[in-house]
Amino acid sequence: MILILKSGVSDEQVQHVLERVESMGLQAHLSRGTFRTIVGIIGDEDKVRAEPLRAIPGVLEVVPVLPPYKLASLEAHPQPSIVSVGDPAWVDEARFGGGHVGLIAGPCAVETEERMHAIAAHVKQAGAGVLRGGAYKPRTSPYSFQGLGEEGLRILRDAGRAQRMPTVTEITDPRLVETVAEYTDMLQVGARNMQNFVLLTEVGRAGKPVLLKRGMSATVEDLLMSAEYILSQGTADVVLCERGVKGYDKATRNLFDLASVAVVKRLSHLPIIVDPSHATGRPDLIPDCALAGVAVGADGVHIEVHDCPEEAKSDGPQALLPDQYRELVAQLRKVAEAVGKQL
Amino acid sequence: MILILKSGVSDEQVQHVLERVESMGLQAHLSRGTFRTIVGIIGDEDKVRAEPLRAIPGVLEVVPVLPPYKLASLEAHPQPSIVSVGDPAWVDEARFGGGHVGLIAGPCAVETEERMHAIAAHVKQAGAGVLRGGAYKPRTSPYSFQGLGEEGLRILRDAGRAQRMPTVTEITDPRLVETVAEYTDMLQVGARNMQNFVLLTEVGRAGKPVLLKRGMSATVEDLLMSAEYILSQGTADVVLCERGVKGYDKATRNLFDLASVAVVKRLSHLPIIVDPSHATGRPDLIPDCALAGVAVGADGVHIEVHDCPEEAKSDGPQALLPDQYRELVAQLRKVAEAVGKQL
Amino acid sequence: MILILKSGVSDEQVQHVLERVESMGLQAHLSRGTFRTIVGIIGDEDKVRAEPLRAIPGVLEVVPVLPPYKLASLEAHPQPSIVSVGDPAWVDEARFGGGHVGLIAGPCAVETEERMHAIAAHVKQAGAGVLRGGAYKPRTSPYSFQGLGEEGLRILRDAGRAQRMPTVTEITDPRLVETVAEYTDMLQVGARNMQNFVLLTEVGRAGKPVLLKRGMSATVEDLLMSAEYILSQGTADVVLCERGVKGYDKATRNLFDLASVAVVKRLSHLPIIVDPSHATGRPDLIPDCALAGVAVGADGVHIEVHDCPEEAKSDGPQALLPDQYRELVAQLRKVAEAVGKQL
Amino acid sequence: MILILKSGVSDEQVQHVLERVESMGLQAHLSRGTFRTIVGIIGDEDKVRAEPLRAIPGVLEVVPVLPPYKLASLEAHPQPSIVSVGDPAWVDEARFGGGHVGLIAGPCAVETEERMHAIAAHVKQAGAGVLRGGAYKPRTSPYSFQGLGEEGLRILRDAGRAQRMPTVTEITDPRLVETVAEYTDMLQVGARNMQNFVLLTEVGRAGKPVLLKRGMSATVEDLLMSAEYILSQGTADVVLCERGVKGYDKATRNLFDLASVAVVKRLSHLPIIVDPSHATGRPDLIPDCALAGVAVGADGVHIEVHDCPEEAKSDGPQALLPDQYRELVAQLRKVAEAVGKQL
Repeated sequence: MILILKSGVSDEQVQHVLERVESMGLQAHLSRGTFRTIVGIIGDEDKVRAEPLRAIPGVLEVVPVLPPYKLASLEAHPQPSIVSVGDPAWVDEARFGGGHVGLIAGPCAVETEERMHAIAAHVKQAGAGVLRGGAYKPRTSPYSFQGLGEEGLRILRDAGRAQRMPTVTEITDPRLVETVAEYTDMLQVGARNMQNFVLLTEVGRAGKPVLLKRGMSATVEDLLMSAEYILSQGTADVVLCERGVKGYDKATRNLFDLASVAVVKRLSHLPIIVDPSHATGRPDLIPDCALAGVAVGADGVHIEVHDCPEEAKSDGPQALLPDQYRELVAQLRKVAEAVGKQL
Repeated sequence: MILILKSGVSDEQVQHVLERVESMGLQAHLSRGTFRTIVGIIGDEDKVRAEPLRAIPGVLEVVPVLPPYKLASLEAHPQPSIVSVGDPAWVDEARFGGGHVGLIAGPCAVETEERMHAIAAHVKQAGAGVLRGGAYKPRTSPYSFQGLGEEGLRILRDAGRAQRMPTVTEITDPRLVETVAEYTDMLQVGARNMQNFVLLTEVGRAGKPVLLKRGMSATVEDLLMSAEYILSQGTADVVLCERGVKGYDKATRNLFDLASVAVVKRLSHLPIIVDPSHATGRPDLIPDCALAGVAVGADGVHIEVHDCPEEAKSDGPQALLPDQYRELVAQLRKVAEAVGKQL
Repeated sequence: MILILKSGVSDEQVQHVLERVESMGLQAHLSRGTFRTIVGIIGDEDKVRAEPLRAIPGVLEVVPVLPPYKLASLEAHPQPSIVSVGDPAWVDEARFGGGHVGLIAGPCAVETEERMHAIAAHVKQAGAGVLRGGAYKPRTSPYSFQGLGEEGLRILRDAGRAQRMPTVTEITDPRLVETVAEYTDMLQVGARNMQNFVLLTEVGRAGKPVLLKRGMSATVEDLLMSAEYILSQGTADVVLCERGVKGYDKATRNLFDLASVAVVKRLSHLPIIVDPSHATGRPDLIPDCALAGVAVGADGVHIEVHDCPEEAKSDGPQALLPDQYRELVAQLRKVAEAVGKQL
Repeated sequence: MILILKSGVSDEQVQHVLERVESMGLQAHLSRGTFRTIVGIIGDEDKVRAEPLRAIPGVLEVVPVLPPYKLASLEAHPQPSIVSVGDPAWVDEARFGGGHVGLIAGPCAVETEERMHAIAAHVKQAGAGVLRGGAYKPRTSPYSFQGLGEEGLRILRDAGRAQRMPTVTEITDPRLVETVAEYTDMLQVGARNMQNFVLLTEVGRAGKPVLLKRGMSATVEDLLMSAEYILSQGTADVVLCERGVKGYDKATRNLFDLASVAVVKRLSHLPIIVDPSHATGRPDLIPDCALAGVAVGADGVHIEVHDCPEEAKSDGPQALLPDQYRELVAQLRKVAEAVGKQL
C-alpha cells in the first residue's frame, strides 16, 4: 500500500499519518520527493485494506500494491484449476480448464418435458458436455414468465439423466440452494446476482461446482472478489463466465469483453468460459463470437439452443437452432486445435 | 409494438408474421414501404411483450411503443406521489415528493451505540429527517467488516427514537425482511441488489416504504421495472435513488447521472432522491453535487455523515463531517427555495 | 512517479531499473516491502513522464504523482481565471468565471440572415451575453447540411453587432482559423475535435478566447491536456465546456457529467460552462439540467435556441423556443443567487 | 421512417404531421393503435433523414428504418471488397478482405533510420505485409514527442522500399495530405480523428487506400458514416480498424469490442482489421487477443513491434518484441486456416 500525500501537507499531518500506520502494527516508510511526499506501508496489506486511509487528513490517494483476492489468485495456486461437473463416469466433456474446453448448452428456460428432452438429445449429439435450462428466471418485468420452479428442476434433471449429461441451472434465492443442489450438478449465479453476497455465501456452502457470471458492469477484480466469496466458503470448483458488459452501442445487446478472458488467465487459476448468447443477443453473431472466445483462451463455451426460438418463453431471439449449434461445435473444434486445446 | 421486417422478406414470411400476431388475439396492420415492410400491432401491448417476436423469421427489429411498467408510470398516476416515512407525529421533514425535499443522513455502517447516538444528534440538529445506518453491509470483499447485524438494527432504532427520527437501513437477505421491518421505518434495496428480484418481491410484501437505489449500469427503465416489482406486491411507497452509474473517468467513484432525475419526472409519479456520497466517493465534491441534485428536481438528498471518517469501518473516505453537513443543509435550503420547493 | 515492480523481480532487474532512472538525471528511492518492491522517483516528473518506464523488464505498474498539465493547473494559477469575450464596452454579461455566470445562446446553425437576426434579438432580450451559431457544421453524415461557410460567419457577425453581442462559432479546419477569427469573438472547438491537436495548436495561435468542449469519452484530465495545448500556444483565455459523455442509457442523447464541473474546479483555474442542449438532446430536460449546472458551480450555460425547431437545418429537436429560454434565464438567475453568483 | 406520436396528441397535431411529411414529397401512412398513433413514411428515407421530424409538436420518437450510409452498405455492394495496398508486384500479403488476412506491423513512431530499417526487416521476415510507423503523432500532451515529420515519412518509405513492403502512416493535418500521400501507400486516420470530417474529406481525395480507425466511443454506425465521407470523395479502398473503445475496467487500456467485427460484416462490404496493441495496451495480452480477432472474422491484424520497447519514444509499453511477433504470426496462420482464410 502506498499513500500519496497532498501537496502542502503539514509536518504534523505527516506525523499523524505515520502514527496511524504504526498503530495498525505496520511499518511506514517515508519518502519526500521534490513535489510530493509518499508513505510506503510495509507488512500485511490485508490488515490495512479495510482501513479508511484515504480519510486521514493530508492523504491524497491510496495506491494498493497487492490484489485483494487470495484464494482466487494465481499466486495462491499457480497451476490452472480443472473443474469437472457431474458423474465422471458419464462425460469426459464436462471439464473446464487446463486445456479442456467444456461446452454448456440448452434452452434459456425449461418449458416442457418433451421440448427439454428433445433439445437435450440435440445438444448431446452435437457434442455438448453440460445441459443447461432455467427453472427460476430473473426477469426484468414482474409480468414475464418466471420459470417452472421445482418442476423445472425435475424436468431438467430427467432430461440430463436420459442423455447422461450433468446439468446446470441458475439459482436466485438463498432459501432454495438445498433444493436446487439436490437436482442439479452445477449451480449458476447470474450476472444480476454477481454481487448478491448473501447468495454467493449460501451457494459456496452447497458443495457443488459453481458457474459465476460476470456482472454487467463488474471489473475483472470485482468478478474475482465474488469468486473469493464462494471459495472462502469451502467450494473449490468455481468456473467464471464472461457474458458481456454494458455498452453504448446498441448493435449488440452487451459489449463482449473477450480480452477479459486473457486478463483473468494472468490473475487467477480459475477456469473462465464465454457466453456469446447473452453477450451479443443476436444468433447471427453467436458463432463468430464463440470462435473468438476459444481463440482468446476460454475454457468453455455456453450457448443457448432452442428448437423453435419463436415459441421460446424467454430469450428466444438469442438462441441457436440445433443444426446451427452442431455446425458451430465442428468449427469450435478446429479453432480449439489451432490453439492447442481439446474440446 | 411495431415490427420492421428484413429487406427481401418473402410473401410467405410476411404471411407467417401476420398469422403469429393474430394468433395472439391482436390486430396486425401491414404497411409496405419503398424499401421495407412494417407491421403495426394493435391491441394490448402487454400481451405481446413477452413473446419472442424478434425470433420470427423475417423480423429485423421490434420497436415497443409503450413503456413496460404500469404501476410506476405517470400515465397510471398523473400526480406526483408523496412518500412519508415513520411516525407522522415525529417529523415533518421525512417526506419525499410533491414539493417536499427529504433529507436522509447518517453513517455508512452502524458501529457503536455511542457513535450512532452522537451522529444522530448531529444530523437531526442540522435538519435531517431520516436517519440511516447499515447493519448488513454488502462488501466487495468477504474479508471486510460485514456489519453488526441485528444488534446494529437495535442501535439504529434506539438512536432514531432518541432523536424522534424515522430510520432506514439496507436489506440484503430475503430471509431477514421481517426482522429488519420490525426495527426500521424504511427498507433500502442497494444498487447491487436492484435486480435481485427475489429480494424486491419480499421487500414489496413488508408493508414499509422502500428506498430503491439505481443499479450501477441500470437504465431508468430498468429502475422503474424494479420499482414495478415492489409496487406489484402491494407497497405503494417507493422512493427511487440516483447514486451514480459506472463510468470510465476515475476522477469520481461513479458517474453521477443527474439528468436521470429529470427523466424519471417525465415517466413516473415516484419520488426520486440523489446520493452524492456514493455517486462521487469524494467528500470535497459532495456539497456541490448535492446542490445540483436539488436544482435538477430531486425530492431528497441522501448523505453519509461520520464524526471521524478516518476511523469509519466502511466507506469513511466519502463521509461528510457533522459541521460540513450542517453547512450544506443551509445551502440546500437556499437552492430548494430557488426552485420553488421546501426542505 | 512511483514504480511498482513485479513479484519475483530479480536483483539484476531491480538494478537495471535503478540505472535507467538515474540515467535520466533523477534519483531513485528503493523500498522493499514484504511482498512487493517499490521505486520512488525523485526529481522533475515531467522528465520521466514521456519515458516508457512500464516497458522496463520487471516493472508492473507506473503510478504518476503529479498531474501532466501545468498551465491549466490550479497549482500554477491558484485564483480562478475570468474570461471576457468581445468588446468590453458592449456587454457585461459576456464574462465567465470568478463568480460570473455567462450565457451563450443561439441556433445550432446559421440558416438565414432574417432568422439569425430574429433569434439574436430574442436571446439578447432574455439576457444572453454571447451569440452562437454554426457556419461550419461537423455532421455525422456527408449528406447532411454542412453549414453556410463564410457567408454564415458574416451573418452571425452582423446579427451580433446589431444586438451589441459578441459571437462564438465552431471551427473545424485549421486552414480557416484566420478567417473565422476575423469574424467572431470566440472560437469554439467541438467535442469531436477535442483531441484534434493540429486544430488546437492553430486555434491557440489566433489570439482569441477559445471555448473548448469536452470530447464524448474524454476524462477531465484529457480535457485539461487539450486546454494545455491551447494555453501553450499563448492564449490564456480558455473556457471549458461539459456537454455530456457517451452513456448506455438512450433516455438522453448523452450522459451529462455534472460532477465533472466540480472536479475541474479542484484541478484548474479555467472557467467551465455546461451545455444541457447537447448533453440531453431533449428540450423538455434542458431547463432542469441547466439549473443543475449552475448549482454545481458552472461559470456559464450554453443553450441552443431556435424560433421554429421543426424547420431547423440541424439539431432542431434539442433547441428551446425563445419564450422557454427567457423563462429559463429567470430561473437560472435565482439559482445563481442561491449559490452566491451573479448572472 | 416511422413516427411514434405522443399519447394525447390532438387531431390538429396529427394533421400537421401529415402535412409536413407530404410537403417533403413523401407519403404518410397513418395507423391509430389502442394507445398510440403511428405514422409510417413511405418514399426516399434520405429525403427525410435531415429533417427535424422529432421537433414537430406531437412527435414522441422517430424510428429510422434504413441505415444512413449507402456506399459503405452491404446492400450497395453485396460482395466483400478486397483492398490491396502498394505495388502489387511486391507483396501478395498486403491484401485485406475476401478471405485475405493482411498483417500490418512496425513501431508506433519512426525514431531513427537505423531502428526503422531493423524493425522493418524483422516484421517482413515474420510475414507482415504492410509496414507502419508514425511521423506525425497525435499525443495527449503538448510536451510529448510529436514525431519526426517529413523526415520520418522519408525514413519509413526507404525502410519499406528496402524490404519491398508498402507503408502506412497516420495523417492528422488536412494540409499535409499531399505530402503524406507522396511518401506512403496507405493513409491512416486515427481514432481521435475519426469524426474530423475535414480530414476525412481531404483524405478521401488523395487517391490512396485509407485505414480508418474506430473512434473511442464511436458506434459501428458512426464508423460506417465516417467511411462514407471517404467513399463519397471517390476513394473505394477503405479498411476499417477496431482498436478498442472506452471502458470502465482499467485492467486493459481500452475495451476490445471484437463482436464489432462480426457486426460490420453484416452491414458493410468493407474489410475490417483489428489492432490488439491499442485495444489492450498490454503486450502480454496482445497475442491472445490477436488470435481472437482472426477467429471472429477480421481481415487483418495491426500490431506494434519495437526492438527495444523501453527506449521507444511513444507507446513502448504496448509493443511486441520481434521474436514475440514472429511467434504470433505462426499462431495466427493456424487460426486463419481453422476459419478458412489465408494469411
